[in-house]
Amino acid sequence: MSLPRIAVDAMGGDEGVRVMIEGAALARRRHDRFKFLLVGDETRIKAALENHPNLRASSEILHTEGVITGEDKPSQALRRAKSTSMGMAIQAVKAGDAGAAVSAGNTGALMAIAKVTLRTLPGIDRPALAALLPTLGDNDVIMLDLGANTECDSRNLVQFAIMGAAYSRVVTGRETPRVRLLNIGTEEIKGTELLRDAAATLKAAGPDLQISFDGFTEADKICRGDVDVVVTDGFSGNIALKAVEGTARFVADLLRRGFSSSLRSKVGFLISRPATELLKHHLDPNNHNGGVFLGLNGLVVKSHGSANAVGVANAVAVTARLLEENVTERITASLARVGENSLRKNAAQEVRV
Amino acid sequence: MSLPRIAVDAMGGDEGVRVMIEGAALARRRHDRFKFLLVGDETRIKAALENHPNLRASSEILHTEGVITGEDKPSQALRRAKSTSMGMAIQAVKAGDAGAAVSAGNTGALMAIAKVTLRTLPGIDRPALAALLPTLGDNDVIMLDLGANTECDSRNLVQFAIMGAAYSRVVTGRETPRVRLLNIGTEEIKGTELLRDAAATLKAAGPDLQISFDGFTEADKICRGDVDVVVTDGFSGNIALKAVEGTARFVADLLRRGFSSSLRSKVGFLISRPATELLKHHLDPNNHNGGVFLGLNGLVVKSHGSANAVGVANAVAVTARLLEENVTERITASLARVGENSLRKNAAQEVRV
Repeated sequence: MSLPRIAVDAMGGDEGVRVMIEGAALARRRHDRFKFLLVGDETRIKAALENHPNLRASSEILHTEGVITGEDKPSQALRRAKSTSMGMAIQAVKAGDAGAAVSAGNTGALMAIAKVTLRTLPGIDRPALAALLPTLGDNDVIMLDLGANTECDSRNLVQFAIMGAAYSRVVTGRETPRVRLLNIGTEEIKGTELLRDAAATLKAAGPDLQISFDGFTEADKICRGDVDVVVTDGFSGNIALKAVEGTARFVADLLRRGFSSSLRSKVGFLISRPATELLKHHLDPNNHNGGVFLGLNGLVVKSHGSANAVGVANAVAVTARLLEENVTERITASLARVGENSLRKNAAQEVRV
Repeated sequence: MSLPRIAVDAMGGDEGVRVMIEGAALARRRHDRFKFLLVGDETRIKAALENHPNLRASSEILHTEGVITGEDKPSQALRRAKSTSMGMAIQAVKAGDAGAAVSAGNTGALMAIAKVTLRTLPGIDRPALAALLPTLGDNDVIMLDLGANTECDSRNLVQFAIMGAAYSRVVTGRETPRVRLLNIGTEEIKGTELLRDAAATLKAAGPDLQISFDGFTEADKICRGDVDVVVTDGFSGNIALKAVEGTARFVADLLRRGFSSSLRSKVGFLISRPATELLKHHLDPNNHNGGVFLGLNGLVVKSHGSANAVGVANAVAVTARLLEENVTERITASLARVGENSLRKNAAQEVRV
């Protein structure tokens, strides 16, 4: 089966058309089976394609001059969606013209348009934004929700766990991913009531869900490599993700200052370059670009607004991987397998307790 | 006026008596006006004091064999408090035998005992845990609450802002600290209703409170040096703090791996040591040790359970600084200055809008 093509919102992101097209071209060079629908201003897209004949050969252009800006509120974006590159990329997914949409534009607008256009999967109340974070272990860790839902109930968290586990199976090949809920302590009594409720449900339904539910984790243990999926509400998830990003940048700045503070340090830096390159690779957000909206009838991937071409290429590669592995179908299958069965079991337990 | 003495729970922390006494001795060496009440097992304290004649000369020992362990739940700790080193250190503050208590023991227990024994200041509904974080600017930033209150309302957040500002004035000397609320975006529409309520109150009452309220900040901007106080609920604050700590540790581990990966890297590391030492200094949590419970009738400072003697000494130094500068009295004065006045003004505004 050939890979469904990927719709790229060519106009989103801080850097605009050039970076989006370069990123797609880079991804295309790595994987020549990728096909694209490039959505945006045809003249500018064609100009950007001049240096990328291979991408041009495997792309179709869908023209529009409408653009969602960073200032558009979700409600405004929704009204204007139909004539914009972001809205048309998502519409292409709905119409079956593309398997997934990638955009570096306004996150709130992307979320709103994706949700209204594609609707959530049966059994999913709300979609969630998931991303991969580096760890000290062999695999990246998936964290969700990263900001799609400011407030969540325990049912949402359980659904996020199911979606995150499906994503993790694709990334790690592990059939029973290790899932934890983000909390401010690991003892069972810690945190809010809704976290304890979600933990009880996941504990009971874990086996049916092919999830190894390992209880709570704290934010300093996300990157240790002993958990595959960290589940949280969108507020806490966004705080945790940004705290990680900000600290990584803070450290990089300190290192830069330190290494340029004297000739001796500069010499040392050059000699130990392989060591600092490793760090740079791990800390560069471009190497972990691509937030995935899970739980919709179709895939929508958010590339970081400030990502460079390498970052965009990584977001495209994540998208292609999830398409190849049918992550959406896997989530649906998971939900069906559990169905009413384990939820009923859990409800019975709750009454007993 | 002489500095009130500091009660040290000598039995708390992963490392126990030796580290607590060494830490106090180190603080005493730096500032010879510090006086201590060392609470715990007299035999073990005396043994630990043998190498520290100066500390011994400026300390009194309060004997008890009771200890709150890491496994004690807050409710158990409360019942046993009176006969434990933690409980007696806090009781000494209440009785006026000490100006502040420092403990490296169980945070939940410390919080519960401190709250029940010392009670909150008039006008404060709940105490908060505050700590200093490093920044790229000239001053550390204060973040609170870091986990004392899992759930907060907007009134709590406003009180945290007042307490954090008082702390910041002591640390930075800035009369009008720059205060922001932690959120998942900086636009006014972002986040929860309670955050928007707190923002409206702080905006209106800022001038009366001698606070420069600059709106929302995101977790990746905490350490940039353009904010003095970051206010949040205990759940998000704990997540943010631990994400920062975890990432710092993650980076340190990566650096260590990188630098020991080859002879070349090891040589480079030795040459560029001054650069990496700067980083190490900034990332070492011992250099930012000492979480302060603000809002109680008396000061209680939490030293990190795994802190070394330098870390304990820093926690003691923070405590002494806050005692010298009468932070508790400053909070009371701030509250009185605002009083009903600005709250009434704000209520009137809210009705108008």
